[in-house]
Amino acid sequence: MTQITIKTPQMKKGSYKIEIGANTLNSVLAKIQADFPQKKLYIITDSAVAKAGHLKTLLAGTDVLSYVIDPSGEVSKNINTVISIIEDMETRSLGRDSVITALGGGTVGDIAGFAAAIFKRGIPVVQVPTTTVSQADSAIGGKTGVDSSMSKNAFGAFWYPAAVFIDVTTLMTLQENEYLSGLVESVKHALIADAKYLEFIEKNIDRLKACDLEILEQIAVYNCNIKGRIVEDDPTEKNLRRVLNYGHTIGHAVESASYFRLLHGQAVAIGMVGAAMMEIEMGIGTQERLKRIESILKKLSQPTRIPADLPKEKIIDLLRRDKKAVNKWPKFVLLEKEGKVYKQGDQFAVDVNQTVVEKVLDQLYKPV
Amino acid sequence: MTQITIKTPQMKKGSYKIEIGANTLNSVLAKIQADFPQKKLYIITDSAVAKAGHLKTLLAGTDVLSYVIDPSGEVSKNINTVISIIEDMETRSLGRDSVITALGGGTVGDIAGFAAAIFKRGIPVVQVPTTTVSQADSAIGGKTGVDSSMSKNAFGAFWYPAAVFIDVTTLMTLQENEYLSGLVESVKHALIADAKYLEFIEKNIDRLKACDLEILEQIAVYNCNIKGRIVEDDPTEKNLRRVLNYGHTIGHAVESASYFRLLHGQAVAIGMVGAAMMEIEMGIGTQERLKRIESILKKLSQPTRIPADLPKEKIIDLLRRDKKAVNKWPKFVLLEKEGKVYKQGDQFAVDVNQTVVEKVLDQLYKPV
Repeated sequence: MTQITIKTPQMKKGSYKIEIGANTLNSVLAKIQADFPQKKLYIITDSAVAKAGHLKTLLAGTDVLSYVIDPSGEVSKNINTVISIIEDMETRSLGRDSVITALGGGTVGDIAGFAAAIFKRGIPVVQVPTTTVSQADSAIGGKTGVDSSMSKNAFGAFWYPAAVFIDVTTLMTLQENEYLSGLVESVKHALIADAKYLEFIEKNIDRLKACDLEILEQIAVYNCNIKGRIVEDDPTEKNLRRVLNYGHTIGHAVESASYFRLLHGQAVAIGMVGAAMMEIEMGIGTQERLKRIESILKKLSQPTRIPADLPKEKIIDLLRRDKKAVNKWPKFVLLEKEGKVYKQGDQFAVDVNQTVVEKVLDQLYKPV
Repeated sequence: MTQITIKTPQMKKGSYKIEIGANTLNSVLAKIQADFPQKKLYIITDSAVAKAGHLKTLLAGTDVLSYVIDPSGEVSKNINTVISIIEDMETRSLGRDSVITALGGGTVGDIAGFAAAIFKRGIPVVQVPTTTVSQADSAIGGKTGVDSSMSKNAFGAFWYPAAVFIDVTTLMTLQENEYLSGLVESVKHALIADAKYLEFIEKNIDRLKACDLEILEQIAVYNCNIKGRIVEDDPTEKNLRRVLNYGHTIGHAVESASYFRLLHGQAVAIGMVGAAMMEIEMGIGTQERLKRIESILKKLSQPTRIPADLPKEKIIDLLRRDKKAVNKWPKFVLLEKEGKVYKQGDQFAVDVNQTVVEKVLDQLYKPV
């Protein structure tokens, strides 16, 4: 078991802890209740996580109230689910002296975190992530939200977890493609922040693919330290936090263009390859680095090229409408070297003109 | 024109300003645009405020986008209105570089402030209150929210205004009962924080009833200073801010029991009389203070007794379900003397047992 503390000046208590271990899920509720002795607990999860047995393990025989989002996945990530949760909490006489526990992947964490942010003007949420993406990324950092009919995360808030409990054992029940694609965020962390971590991933990639708990715990520690320090420095995404967007600008466009047929991590994998190509075009990258990134992603069974049936014009159009676009063109996060992000002045998201991006997109369509 | 600065450590810029004046509404948008030169403005108001001509005055001939909540009032204070606003903003291509201006009473301020809190994880809101209640109370302090089907402000957030502009001239278009009942919050501020302010109100009560702009400006300055300092000290209602609840515990119960036939201020007037009666029962109040409070409230045409048709059992039941109840019984804010709240230890909301409260309720049913 490893414990990491993340500073959050936005929270009254000033920090929150992340506990990382294996086979710890059945002791989590008791710890939460000990941390909040006067509070009533309420669990939010989804039908897939419940079906995998994790809700039962978390409950550990107690009768703590729970809400199961059904169906699971992005289709339920809307304000109606949040309304339904809040009305359920009120029906069960839960008030501002409640604590929400979010058990599940990024969607559950986003919905439950947002519900906590706005229930009675805000109650604590404890994040218990159960996927490779959420354990590496979304459970840490306080972003919450749901989609509107028009855009992703249109309703949202920055709402920091009161604590995060990571039990890597929960990853063993994931579908293989979900498990592997979620590891892309770990590769991203290594590339933007820690060359030694990148070597660790390369060295242990077979054990990682085999769901080795010891390696997964170490990966989680790396991820939480990297993401945690970044959000400590820039909680509301003014500059540094932009580095987390590495691979995500092209990634989001490809993901949307595929109508989410590509998993998030798969799209980000393509986006990271695109970033490496842009670096070469701009004279700050190397073929060697591109090959190295492609090699890791291939070992994780991730795509490194854009599927041929996604129209290039659509991807360019989506890039223009990127949430962070300024004057209808996004900025990009690129690497100076493995473990270090390239900066223009003090900016971590830099200008890459459309000609270069189009050239890179053309390369991304060519079969390897 | 008077300017007051309120410290808000929760906001990045650390403070916001309140500008108080008369006949200033037509210059407000220009000031907001000057404060946010790169941002797109969006006004949220309601049909009653628009009908009173204030939207036109605020627009001052510009084509700033606006959303008119219709119908006005509590009936629209729900999440569907917020969804409709956010979808409208998206339709008009407004993004995270937008600023919301809330023009109206407490309901508009609550809805617009909450929309700002959750649109794209939070954008600035400027409050332009147009009622006696909102100018004295709700526009200052950052509480926002909407009702669920089961309770008031079930969805909400603490979201501080980027600025507040108070034009007391807007009060002249209010219905008399709305105007007068809104002044109850001013009486409350005087009672909990400033005996001199109480004398000022008593001395100028006829000019106040006549909507004298000079007096209204002075009242607004008193109110903003009192409420502003309290929320500075306790932004998220851990203790001191509870003093603002003076008169509100019985008040909220009576308001709900009347199905909002009683206006908020009218219900709080009854609640303040109830508080004075509790003080007498507990040996910390005087008949003289009770009479003094009743006299001011009567001059403002406010009720001082519970309408006979509201069942006492219902009020007791509502007290048990009070949002701030602990073990199904609320605490109460009482006075030590005019201008000073009574404390138990370091607590501003104190224990009053049910027997005493029931006795006071019986007195509150007796005709004066």
